[in-house]
Amino acid sequence: MPDPSTAAIEAAAARIAPHIRRTPVLRLEGADLGLSIPLILKLELLQATGSFKPRGAFNRLLSQAVPAAGVVTASGGNHGAAVAYAARALGHRAEVFCPVATPAAKTDRIEAYGATLHRIGAAYDEARIASEARAAETGAMLVHAYDQPEILAGQGTVGMELWQDAPEATHVLVATGGGGLIGGIAAWYADKGAQVISVEPEGCPALHHALAAGHPLPAPVGGLAADSLGAKQIGALSFAVARDHVAQAVLVPDAAIAEAQRRLWSALRLVAEAGGAAALAALVSGAFVPPAGARVALVLCGSNTDPAKVTGPAKVTG
Amino acid sequence: MPDPSTAAIEAAAARIAPHIRRTPVLRLEGADLGLSIPLILKLELLQATGSFKPRGAFNRLLSQAVPAAGVVTASGGNHGAAVAYAARALGHRAEVFCPVATPAAKTDRIEAYGATLHRIGAAYDEARIASEARAAETGAMLVHAYDQPEILAGQGTVGMELWQDAPEATHVLVATGGGGLIGGIAAWYADKGAQVISVEPEGCPALHHALAAGHPLPAPVGGLAADSLGAKQIGALSFAVARDHVAQAVLVPDAAIAEAQRRLWSALRLVAEAGGAAALAALVSGAFVPPAGARVALVLCGSNTDPAKVTGPAKVTG
Repeated sequence: MPDPSTAAIEAAAARIAPHIRRTPVLRLEGADLGLSIPLILKLELLQATGSFKPRGAFNRLLSQAVPAAGVVTASGGNHGAAVAYAARALGHRAEVFCPVATPAAKTDRIEAYGATLHRIGAAYDEARIASEARAAETGAMLVHAYDQPEILAGQGTVGMELWQDAPEATHVLVATGGGGLIGGIAAWYADKGAQVISVEPEGCPALHHALAAGHPLPAPVGGLAADSLGAKQIGALSFAVARDHVAQAVLVPDAAIAEAQRRLWSALRLVAEAGGAAALAALVSGAFVPPAGARVALVLCGSNTDPAKVTGPAKVTG
Repeated sequence: MPDPSTAAIEAAAARIAPHIRRTPVLRLEGADLGLSIPLILKLELLQATGSFKPRGAFNRLLSQAVPAAGVVTASGGNHGAAVAYAARALGHRAEVFCPVATPAAKTDRIEAYGATLHRIGAAYDEARIASEARAAETGAMLVHAYDQPEILAGQGTVGMELWQDAPEATHVLVATGGGGLIGGIAAWYADKGAQVISVEPEGCPALHHALAAGHPLPAPVGGLAADSLGAKQIGALSFAVARDHVAQAVLVPDAAIAEAQRRLWSALRLVAEAGGAAALAALVSGAFVPPAGARVALVLCGSNTDPAKVTGPAKVTG
């Protein structure tokens, strides 16, 4: 049985339901996106805070008592915004550690939700180390960006909703960073019939490299989506799920991600951040080629970027 | 019985189904949008071409034989893009007449879809006169931006979908320009129980003035949403529906529209053009105050604008 189990994900869904948005599914002809197959889009980029992250954050904060010192987390930005949002909603203090390069679209949210923002380090991993030291110092609850059971179960609710709303999907493409989203979704689909495909940028291949090596190990962090998918090492919990329940782990070049962003804007007027468009980039680049008759679902998982970066001319319009 | 009838709208829905997107509904707490009631959002701004207009355009083009000279239309921009898109999909020539002030977000689409674009006049009405002369000259089919039965029936499918997907809605707020959308939706809901509310900018009060006078008459055209809601006079067909089946016709100031746009960006990362955000502006401004227990649905109907115009600081974030 995968961990989290279907029951754990269903329990998370019930726990977080008052706080998160059930994001809709949109079916459309791929032609408008320059593709030859119909697509199912899970519009998780419409989630509160602009990414899927509140699902795991609320599930973690609601699963055990939060100390008076509140919560501490480290994040490339989206998870930090989600923890700040959840902490505000539930009446807790929050401190968020981000790399200095985290874009304003994310740090603005963290501060708008009332959290204390610390900028430290060139990449997520340095912010993570600082956050762990801070939690040890203050006694605050540590909310990991991906490698905790409650986080995986919370993110798995994206899979549950998609499965309920688009039962015809045969393949589900999911962007992978530290692995919370792919771990939760692959766990949900483990016994549901559809194949789950991991999509990583070539510049952030943590899961791809770990699957090749047979265990999590440090990987490079760079490129267009580093602020959302730039974990140095895949989470241990997610790796265990992915090893058994991810059908393929593909890599996509940054150029395909940028083109996917432009097509989402052109065809749908959706602003997707690089990480949020990575799943589509797997089709744009040909890194994933659907078999005949496949019904492909894409999880569009984040929208926190400057729109000026995504509105250039695309090769197609819809 | 309203015209179009439920049966006519259902027939339109079947006719256009292969060509348009069934846009999703999103339910969310109003708090993220700075409001105190839960909301139902019909995300029609995700429609092909960035507005609801392809529904009516396809229904018109599929309802009768199109001559070799193709189709001619006049438009503030969105309808022109929709006619261009539909004509391309169905293999017809298209000519589109737009006022010179039509923004690039719209004219770019018209040309990308392969139509011949003519820019003429300061407002829609002058483009309309030129388009009618051109159709008489070439023998092309005239596709009116709102005042034709097939157009109303096509736009009415927005109401049909909303009613199917959110049967709990008690009030449906709809932006009104020339009246195609409000006419179609009010006709659908005529016997379905929910109240339909028309929302116009103070600068484009065509329906509001017509209802006060008891008949369509010329009205001012100006302000932030003039490129999508700037019809000089409400359509005769739409007026007949609205007189009997629109519960209220409210006016909103441009400042409330701009604030609604900023909130949609902040809380949902949605880019709505001014006309597309007008329904929300009725709640933001207090022009429409829902009664206790109301379940309010907003039709977000267009997204063709420069995102730089909608991403300023809002009073709330979600």
